[in-house]
Amino acid sequence: MDKKVAVLGGGNGAFAMASDLALQGFEIRMWSKYPDEFREIKKTHMIKVSGPLIQGEAKISVVTDRIEEAIRGADLICSPIPAFTQTSVAESLLPHIEDGQVIFLSPGTFGSYLMSKRLREMGCRKDIAIGETGTLPFLTRKMSPVESRIVVRACNLPTGVFPARKTEEAIEKIRAVFPSVHPVEDALSGALMNAGPVIHPPLIVLNTGPIENPAPYDIHNEGTTPGIRKIISLLDEERIAVREAFGYKPNHYPLEDYYDETRPNEWMYPRISKKLLMESRLWYEKIDYKHRYATEDIACGLAFLNSAADYIGAAIPVARSLLCLAGGGAGVDFMKTGRTLQSVGLSHLPIEELRERLREGF
Amino acid sequence: MDKKVAVLGGGNGAFAMASDLALQGFEIRMWSKYPDEFREIKKTHMIKVSGPLIQGEAKISVVTDRIEEAIRGADLICSPIPAFTQTSVAESLLPHIEDGQVIFLSPGTFGSYLMSKRLREMGCRKDIAIGETGTLPFLTRKMSPVESRIVVRACNLPTGVFPARKTEEAIEKIRAVFPSVHPVEDALSGALMNAGPVIHPPLIVLNTGPIENPAPYDIHNEGTTPGIRKIISLLDEERIAVREAFGYKPNHYPLEDYYDETRPNEWMYPRISKKLLMESRLWYEKIDYKHRYATEDIACGLAFLNSAADYIGAAIPVARSLLCLAGGGAGVDFMKTGRTLQSVGLSHLPIEELRERLREGF
Repeated sequence: MDKKVAVLGGGNGAFAMASDLALQGFEIRMWSKYPDEFREIKKTHMIKVSGPLIQGEAKISVVTDRIEEAIRGADLICSPIPAFTQTSVAESLLPHIEDGQVIFLSPGTFGSYLMSKRLREMGCRKDIAIGETGTLPFLTRKMSPVESRIVVRACNLPTGVFPARKTEEAIEKIRAVFPSVHPVEDALSGALMNAGPVIHPPLIVLNTGPIENPAPYDIHNEGTTPGIRKIISLLDEERIAVREAFGYKPNHYPLEDYYDETRPNEWMYPRISKKLLMESRLWYEKIDYKHRYATEDIACGLAFLNSAADYIGAAIPVARSLLCLAGGGAGVDFMKTGRTLQSVGLSHLPIEELRERLREGF
Repeated sequence: MDKKVAVLGGGNGAFAMASDLALQGFEIRMWSKYPDEFREIKKTHMIKVSGPLIQGEAKISVVTDRIEEAIRGADLICSPIPAFTQTSVAESLLPHIEDGQVIFLSPGTFGSYLMSKRLREMGCRKDIAIGETGTLPFLTRKMSPVESRIVVRACNLPTGVFPARKTEEAIEKIRAVFPSVHPVEDALSGALMNAGPVIHPPLIVLNTGPIENPAPYDIHNEGTTPGIRKIISLLDEERIAVREAFGYKPNHYPLEDYYDETRPNEWMYPRISKKLLMESRLWYEKIDYKHRYATEDIACGLAFLNSAADYIGAAIPVARSLLCLAGGGAGVDFMKTGRTLQSVGLSHLPIEELRERLREGF
């Protein structure tokens, strides 16, 4: 019998993941709480897939706004949706999640902990595990309500599991669907692999002018200039310094491995990715402080990186500067409103207790 | 007899100042250490003036690369050249400066102190005074080696004098040439009026993408978006907070008075200035970290604002963030390489001694 995979959400990531896995032979059940996202595929149960990697018509077995129809008996529950929806997804999952099920967040932004905590607070005692990785497994855009264009598929997905004691069994289940997954120490290590908070905040802040202007502009293309690359590198060095301060081991997946294809190590995406991304011209889109790059990667991801650095005592001047200026532009203090070790209730724990919580769970 | 005015430098500011004052009837002597800047006007002693305010042919009495020919007997020595040249200008002035002469820096970036210190170190005992104001008295561009286009003339030039005990006599001499000058407390108050370090660093940092791209781009026009305006406002609030922490009094010339022409107070430039600046389309120029906006307004001005805040204990997160990101882009730590209260040798003084130094001089 085919493996059953629930894919939560109806955006870029969900459409790519559902259709790519369907074409590989998985039985796919898609759920979104917004029926409008499914208004076309609800009728046809088909997603057209285009792009350089893979083309075809992907059959989606279940298309529903009732989450239990998606997750019942699912071998894996995939949640490729923005971090700021994770608490709400946990609330939707609560009555239906089953013992032994595994949820895969791509990326996570420490959502594995946050969702577990929310489920626990609401009384859930099911024996589940949540894995989180450092990026969406695809570079992709939903071209229409019936078409996904997939430009790149990830080749390395470093993944932390909450609780970490369940790493082996959870990774086995995730890897049965995503062979490029490999385990890292724990959920925090997985969260500190997240590339979005390193790439997108510099691209937004240092391109504030052009993204606020009407002319088409691609922050990944003409917006990724030598000066901005330098800032991204410095920010990534800070992320890695935070990982090292927590004692996490390499491979830290330095973003240089993505930007410079001559380096020996392949990043999460294969070497050809940057070229394909730029050639696709799919990323000329309107970006503002309501875009996922801001609401997820700044408010959740970059604030979290700052708080992790504060907790462990690492100096991160570039991360702090970007968060300050992004907050100034958006009119908020992301350290107060965003996702932090404070806001998830962990900042008061000594490091040994934090490690134990990450390992043992609730 | 006409008043004699020496104008130092051969760039945008010097050409505008020399020609505007010449058309008003002053006897103008221009000096530059770079003879090439004068290769045309050396022959004709004429600068063509264009723009909405004033048009004509301005006669320049002296055009020289020998500074003594410019400053001998001058009623005022004007130095509208970038802050990073001030030490070198002081060294050129040393053998020739006369008792009672007044130098006017527009703007100063605390150069009045720095030049006085350098002159003193080299043994100068002349009784001179140096005034510094918050902006160039013109919005202007040198259109060619023989033409200056003047778009705006300043209407308020708050000016601090070093040493402050000579404020009254120095202001009188400067005001005889620039009637819009009025005194502020001392040189530091004048330095903390400088608008360049508040306007230009956000415009550069938050437009890093477009200024590194080949397409024409005006940071003052399409580069001044709502989000960037917000950051400029926050930065200006920090500048004013530093002024207040030092005990300096209003008018602090908030930049809102420049950007919002409906406010009751007129800024250093008259209300029409922003409109004229944008309509002129003169500011579509190539900007990088070698431009004056960076070498003067970041390395000297913004670093100085940061150091003044550190000295007095004011919180300036936006100023610090911009300096950090600009330094990351330029590959330097401006707090180490730039102009600071440390680098000018004042940071160790208690506040009372600092005030006395500013008042009494050396």
